[in-house]
Amino acid sequence: MAKTYKIAVIPGDGIGKEVTPWAQKALEKAAEGVADFEYEQFDLGAERYLRDGAILPEEEEERIKANDAILLGAVGDPRIKAGILERGLLLKLRFDLDQYVNLRPSKLYKGVTSPLANPGDIDFVVVREGTEGLYCGAGGAVRRGTPNEVATEVSINTAYGVERVVRYAFKLAMKRKKHVTLVHKKNVLVNAGDMWQRIVDKVAEEYPEVSHDYLHIDATTIFLVSDPSRFDVILTDNLFGDIITDEAGAVVGGVGYSASGCINASDEYPSMFEPIHGSAPDIAGQNKANPTAAILSAAMLLEHLGFDDAAKRIHKAVEADIEELGSTVRSTDQVGEDILARM
Amino acid sequence: MAKTYKIAVIPGDGIGKEVTPWAQKALEKAAEGVADFEYEQFDLGAERYLRDGAILPEEEEERIKANDAILLGAVGDPRIKAGILERGLLLKLRFDLDQYVNLRPSKLYKGVTSPLANPGDIDFVVVREGTEGLYCGAGGAVRRGTPNEVATEVSINTAYGVERVVRYAFKLAMKRKKHVTLVHKKNVLVNAGDMWQRIVDKVAEEYPEVSHDYLHIDATTIFLVSDPSRFDVILTDNLFGDIITDEAGAVVGGVGYSASGCINASDEYPSMFEPIHGSAPDIAGQNKANPTAAILSAAMLLEHLGFDDAAKRIHKAVEADIEELGSTVRSTDQVGEDILARM
Ligand SMILES: CC(C)[C@H](C(=O)O)[C@@H](O)C(=O)O
Ligand SMILES: CC(C)[C@H](C(=O)O)[C@@H](O)C(=O)O
Repeated sequence: MAKTYKIAVIPGDGIGKEVTPWAQKALEKAAEGVADFEYEQFDLGAERYLRDGAILPEEEEERIKANDAILLGAVGDPRIKAGILERGLLLKLRFDLDQYVNLRPSKLYKGVTSPLANPGDIDFVVVREGTEGLYCGAGGAVRRGTPNEVATEVSINTAYGVERVVRYAFKLAMKRKKHVTLVHKKNVLVNAGDMWQRIVDKVAEEYPEVSHDYLHIDATTIFLVSDPSRFDVILTDNLFGDIITDEAGAVVGGVGYSASGCINASDEYPSMFEPIHGSAPDIAGQNKANPTAAILSAAMLLEHLGFDDAAKRIHKAVEADIEELGSTVRSTDQVGEDILARM
Repeated sequence: MAKTYKIAVIPGDGIGKEVTPWAQKALEKAAEGVADFEYEQFDLGAERYLRDGAILPEEEEERIKANDAILLGAVGDPRIKAGILERGLLLKLRFDLDQYVNLRPSKLYKGVTSPLANPGDIDFVVVREGTEGLYCGAGGAVRRGTPNEVATEVSINTAYGVERVVRYAFKLAMKRKKHVTLVHKKNVLVNAGDMWQRIVDKVAEEYPEVSHDYLHIDATTIFLVSDPSRFDVILTDNLFGDIITDEAGAVVGGVGYSASGCINASDEYPSMFEPIHGSAPDIAGQNKANPTAAILSAAMLLEHLGFDDAAKRIHKAVEADIEELGSTVRSTDQVGEDILARM
């Protein structure tokens, strides 16, 4: 008998609510016969916040934690001051649920037009640290609003946090083209950069088959445009990972094809899967959003639970759909149905 | 009679030494009859450091400070640990000489092939803060080399430092297309981001003709690939400026066409002009490096000293050269001669 997994679903705002049901449908169809899913819906995000001021009530967070995995849509609304939902909901979940790896594959699908004239064969994964760095929330301001204001942001990096994500990257490289590129800015951020480099060099000794090199973040943004096919596994910190995965999303033809997984370190808490795109208020409610990234996040969820074949089913359907129909204008539901029909 | 300006010349390493003489020649030819230049050469950079361990001796720094402007080539050598020359020489000059604005124009010249399929008409300037943020050197490490190591990097941002660079950006926008885009990550770096936004909003009130908007750094890396012609003046902090100017350099066909100016805040100390590219040890000494960026940095120097017509002479010659011969393989000296011949 198929095992039942409990999935917390946070559709969130805007197009998040339109694409997430398609992620659920893809999940079910792909895992038919091998796994069942029981959903618990959570009404969190901008709409909830605007309605009753709640961001992530403790009781709800505890219930989320009791699930086997999380499907998230997108969170955000321009009416809410920057930082409130990000820090109070999205980043709070990543930190509280110890989601140490933020996994972000970038692949140029056949049928998708890259903005690059000669994109080459792009297929890499960014392993972004998810629980430290400048995202800690350390920092503050004095004399706010005066000419003497000083505002600080502190990047906190621990050998504990870095080593575990470095290990993840090298393990992942073993299943891929066996190359890890560390991205940092060690010529300026000498304390954190030096620690990252030392830990990479140490862990690399345990993986003699995996080659590794180093690139500054600024040089990386050049290569993502001039030679993106050079990358296999990119390993980097929280902020640099945020930056290059968006650039990578653009290079593979738009964040509409990019999913991500926030992986919990110990399986004590659920991992979380989400499309990289935002809530896109400008096209929300119009059945226009492309659900492909959300559906790909369901595939990442399946892989994470160990259902590689089911995940492949989604990947194959998505690839075929994009190759054949990627350039046609379709509604959210049409794309969802087209992909499901191929599975 | 033409006034004589004292220029400190720091050719530096690798191709820096090959391209800088062409910047000097362009300077002289462009300003013929209106300004004269007296050079003081400084032997600083990787070679000097490897020879006698000196990075920026105080006495030499004092002599640099006594000049009217600085021409820098490029500094760096892979044999030297990351951070030593950067922090000890390049960033030390930017900080000690209070070079609050790091000015970096990005322009797609006719005749240059952008890696983008449809680049559009790219012509913007990044106004990067040059004396604060994560570049301060604040931070440290405890229990270095142990499993309990913690490494920090602190971004220090002051209303004083931010306001002056914000004012520079709005003034510059008045001479251009009158649009300023603030780039930050205010949804995560809430203290610094909030301060930047407040100061931009305040200064903007004094420039009713200048429109302004805001983009997160991650979204900016997308637009630089998908729609770079949308930008006019990009205003951002030290680290984000470092990152997007390299991506911008790639998008306009390579950092070989990108120059930059580090502008002193009060004319108490000299401003510094340099190509964006590095010392490129792989092609050094082969008369292969393109001196165009160095020559463009001479144009920025002239503009800074108030010689707009002389600067235009360089820009016109460079534009004509690239349009006609940009795609032909030429030696450093040939490109230099070709550009000078057009002036
Ligand atoms: C919304 C924001 C806090 C988030 C981040 O910076 O991590 C987003 O940009 C992402 O990449 O998931
Ligand atoms: C060499 C390095 C310290 C420098 C920087 O980060 O500012 C360089 O990348 C630049 O952009 O001028």
